[in-house]
Order: sequence, then C-alpha cells, then structure tokens
Amino acid sequence: MSQTPKHILLAVSDRDIQDLKAALQQQAPEMRVYTLEDNFPAASIDFAVLWKQPEGLLAQLPALQGITSLGAGVDFILNDPALPPDIPVARIVAVDLKQQMAQYVTAVVTRFHRRFPEFEQQQKARQWRVLPVAPAPVVGFAGFGQLGAFVAESLRPLGYRIASWTRQTKTAADMSFVGQEGLRQLVEQSDFVINLLPLTAATRGIFNSQTFAWMQQRKPVFVHAGRGPQVIESDLIRALDAGWLSHAVMDVFNTEPLPAESPLWTHPAITITPHLAARSDAYQTAAAIVRQCRALAAGQPMPLQIDRHRAY
Amino acid sequence: MSQTPKHILLAVSDRDIQDLKAALQQQAPEMRVYTLEDNFPAASIDFAVLWKQPEGLLAQLPALQGITSLGAGVDFILNDPALPPDIPVARIVAVDLKQQMAQYVTAVVTRFHRRFPEFEQQQKARQWRVLPVAPAPVVGFAGFGQLGAFVAESLRPLGYRIASWTRQTKTAADMSFVGQEGLRQLVEQSDFVINLLPLTAATRGIFNSQTFAWMQQRKPVFVHAGRGPQVIESDLIRALDAGWLSHAVMDVFNTEPLPAESPLWTHPAITITPHLAARSDAYQTAAAIVRQCRALAAGQPMPLQIDRHRAY
Repeated sequence: MSQTPKHILLAVSDRDIQDLKAALQQQAPEMRVYTLEDNFPAASIDFAVLWKQPEGLLAQLPALQGITSLGAGVDFILNDPALPPDIPVARIVAVDLKQQMAQYVTAVVTRFHRRFPEFEQQQKARQWRVLPVAPAPVVGFAGFGQLGAFVAESLRPLGYRIASWTRQTKTAADMSFVGQEGLRQLVEQSDFVINLLPLTAATRGIFNSQTFAWMQQRKPVFVHAGRGPQVIESDLIRALDAGWLSHAVMDVFNTEPLPAESPLWTHPAITITPHLAARSDAYQTAAAIVRQCRALAAGQPMPLQIDRHRAY
Repeated sequence: MSQTPKHILLAVSDRDIQDLKAALQQQAPEMRVYTLEDNFPAASIDFAVLWKQPEGLLAQLPALQGITSLGAGVDFILNDPALPPDIPVARIVAVDLKQQMAQYVTAVVTRFHRRFPEFEQQQKARQWRVLPVAPAPVVGFAGFGQLGAFVAESLRPLGYRIASWTRQTKTAADMSFVGQEGLRQLVEQSDFVINLLPLTAATRGIFNSQTFAWMQQRKPVFVHAGRGPQVIESDLIRALDAGWLSHAVMDVFNTEPLPAESPLWTHPAITITPHLAARSDAYQTAAAIVRQCRALAAGQPMPLQIDRHRAY
C-alpha cells in the first residue's frame, strides 16, 4: 500500500458533483476521478467519496484503501452491509462547512431571541411596541464536536451563554453536561436546543416525547441540524401542540426530500429548510479529499478519520 | 470642582427609567438621583443623563459639571440651544449595547444571506428546493466606531468579509473606504449596507436617491440602525420600487413612533422594528454613569466623552 490513491470514485447519488470532480482534477492532476455515471474501473478504485452510495457498491471495490463521507455524517457508511471491516473511514468538515452551520444556527438564535417573528406580526398591524428581550439566553448543544464548538464560539461574542451535552468528556462550554442524565439537564436549562449529534445506535430517536417533555420548563426553540432519524417526528408535533417547545427549525428529516403529505410542512411552529444548513463547497471539499489521500499514502490517519467503534 | 457629582438628574422623557434610578442608587448610594417627575433641586444638579430632554432644561442647571447621553446618540444634546458651551458631554455604549447591536445586525445578515425568507415561501408551497448561497458576502458599514467595529468582529468568524466607510482614518476592515468618494465605493461593493453613522450636519439625509442609485450594482440589503433623519424615507421607497436595493430593515425613523399612516409599514421590501436594535440595560447603564461621574471628579475625560467639535 502506502501509495497515493490514484483512482478515486465519487459515489454520490443525490446531487450533481461535476464541480467537485473538476476541482479534484485541478488540485490533483495525477489522480483519475470517476463518478457513478462514468464507466469506472471497479477493480482499480482505491479511494471512495461516498454520499448515499448504491447498495452493494462497496463489495465491488477490492482495491479500496480508504473512504470518506462527503459530509460530516458517516452513519450511512457504517450501516452499509457491504462495508469491508478494516477500511479506514473519514469525514469532511471544511472550515466553510463550519461557518455555514454557524450562519444557519446564528440566524435562528438571533431571530427568535430578538423576537423578529413578533415584530413582523406587529408590522402587519402597524403596531409600534417595544418587547423586552431576555438577557444572555442559554444556547445548548446536543453534540459538541468540531462543528458544535465552532458554532458556540461564534455565538459567544454576541452575548449568549453556551451549554453542551457530550457522552463523557466535559467541554469548555459555560455549562457542560455529560452522560445519560446530561441530556435532560441540557434541555431543561436551555433557551435554544441545537441538535448536532452524529447518528449512531444511541442517538437514533433520541428526540422523542420523553426528551420533549423535559423541555417544558423553558420552552426552547429547537434547531434540528443533526441527522433526520434522531427525531421522532410525530412526537415533535405532539410536543409543539402541547406547548412544550416554542418552535422547531428543521433542516433534516426521516425522509428526504420531505414528502408533500408530511404534516410538518404546515405546522405553524415549524420552519423547514431543505437540508442545506451546511453543504460542502467544491473547492474546499476537493482540498480535504486530497489531504485525506495523501495521509493514507503516508501511512498516517486521515484528517477526521473516525473511530469505527464509537461511530464518530 | 473635582468632586464626585452628588445630584444626578435623569432627564429622560420617553420611557420609564425607574429601573435605572434604582440601579444607580444601589451602585452609588452616596448620590442623590432624581427624575423629571421628582421635585429636583435644579440649582444643585451637577450631572445630567439626557434622552430627549425638555426644551430649556439645560439653561436651568447652573451647577452642571457633566452630561451623558443615555445612548450612543448625542445629536439631540449638541443641537440643544440651551447646552452650555464648556460642559463635557459623553455617551454610553455598554458592552451589552454592542452585543445587542451585533445580535440585531447578525440576525438580518444571516437571515437574508441564507435565504430564509425564500425558504419560508417554499414551505408554504411544500416545495423542497435547495437554493445556492453566495460565498463570503461583503458586509459594509457606514460608520465604523466602537459599535460598528464590534459588530464586524462578530460577523467575521461566520465567514463574512467586512467593508467600512469612515471620514478619514482607514480601519482594520478587509476593505476600508474613506472620504467623500468612500460612501459610493462602499455601497457599490457591499451585499449588505449597515448604517451605524452618528447624526451630524454631514450625515443628515445622507441616504437619498443618489446614494441608493449607487446600490444598483449589487442590490444590497440595507440595515438602518443609525439615526432616523439620515434616511430620506420617500427616496428609500422609490429606490426599493426601482429594485436598486433588495430589502430594507429599519429600526429608526424620521418620526417615532412611526405614524400609522406611513407607507413604510406596508411596503413588501421593508421590515420595521420599533427602535430597539440596541437599548440600554439598567444595570450596565448605571455602572457606566458611575464611571463617568468618577472620571469627572478625578479631573479625567469621561469614558466615551465626545469631541464637541466633531460631534461624535
């Protein structure tokens, strides 16, 4: 091994990736880059960039040395029955991706904290009335990896207090909760709950009636920018109807695109965006892939290589 | 002189300031604090906190040693014909005030940059469609004092490029424009134009048909959080109708409260908030006043004392 991968397959099924292919060819002219549409040489593919790859594809790539997810999520890779056991798997969290997520979360937090939706209603009634603003609300992050920590550091200078919930290691947040009980403490004390958890067996369905019931005390705004299956969508609707949360902003869903018949579309306390909180930028993504291939060739762990046992 | 002021008058006519009075009495028990409703000893008042003070009031306070505005604006003090010529005048820009302004501006910039208004429209049509997002938009500040610089530093980690227009001294912004021509350069190259200028003879009516016409190239979102009379409101409406700007978010107006008959209320490209982008918090404001009084007593310039010649 220890040779820079030369045949890269971009196995991405749900979007146009010609920009990424072009960026990769420009940044690493020695590599051959294929997409699923190309007549790719399966036996020679030594590196794969995956996003919703076709079923069984991974079993057909005997020369594979490494894999990266095109985004921050890796669940769809680790859950692929065709995934060979010993291939290192990485993911991509470009600076730009972190900034995008920070923009998205900040847009929601500042808008609701500063009560813009209510001022829009007042404007329709030509009503001039100052509404008090809460001092220093708590923004609580479920999941506080690179992404969460970056978003938190962007919010802090604006005067928000930061809370985090992580599996076992305390963080630099103002309030750091860990372990099983930590999620309850987080949602009981946060004015905004930001879900940025990775999808694992332990986080599937983690936002359910029980979790939402804990929110009753503070009635936070919930920002769902993790992975769709972490939220039981019918439980969320019931919780909003019961007034346990004040609003939900959702970027990810159990089924995407969100089906037209979903009741989420028309719920007055739900804002829906089409999975774009943080999308990879072609240039930066290509640069990250090249760095991963070179690390692999040097026998080093890839940047952002995941621990397959922990699943993140 | 050089004695800590002992009789403070809060001459504030448009809001309840009992919180501020209580906070001042708690933080400086040696001071006597009066409001306009009290039977205040005019001959003994040695420090005045002003906000839309009554006409002629300042001529009736012979012992006055110093004045502060309750907010960042001082125009209404400098334009008061009863202002004695040699009294030092300061203003209050609490950290909290800066954070409030940063929250407000960030709420607008991130919302429009990340196209939330369009996603809200799509949601009504149950439409799932990703819209491209501009990389690294330019946020241009007209006025780049303490307030503008703080807001800019909050936006920078989110991936925005910063431009500034100031009278004569270049700033640390990515693009710094100065002098007469600078305003044109700023609005021609900014995706967001943030007005945080102080109100002076030179800035009254500065946002007029001419200025808005310069915006045609980039069609920015305009955030008006300076002082009302800086915008010719009828010119703004014509410019929006002509498509020179894409949207205006207004927190200040020529007449406040904004009269019910104003056409601004119903314009589809205008968002109105009732002058609350940055409001003083009683505790922090009281602390700032105490620091000003003590500086005065020590014969030092007050924190944020203004240059009366420059008017800011």
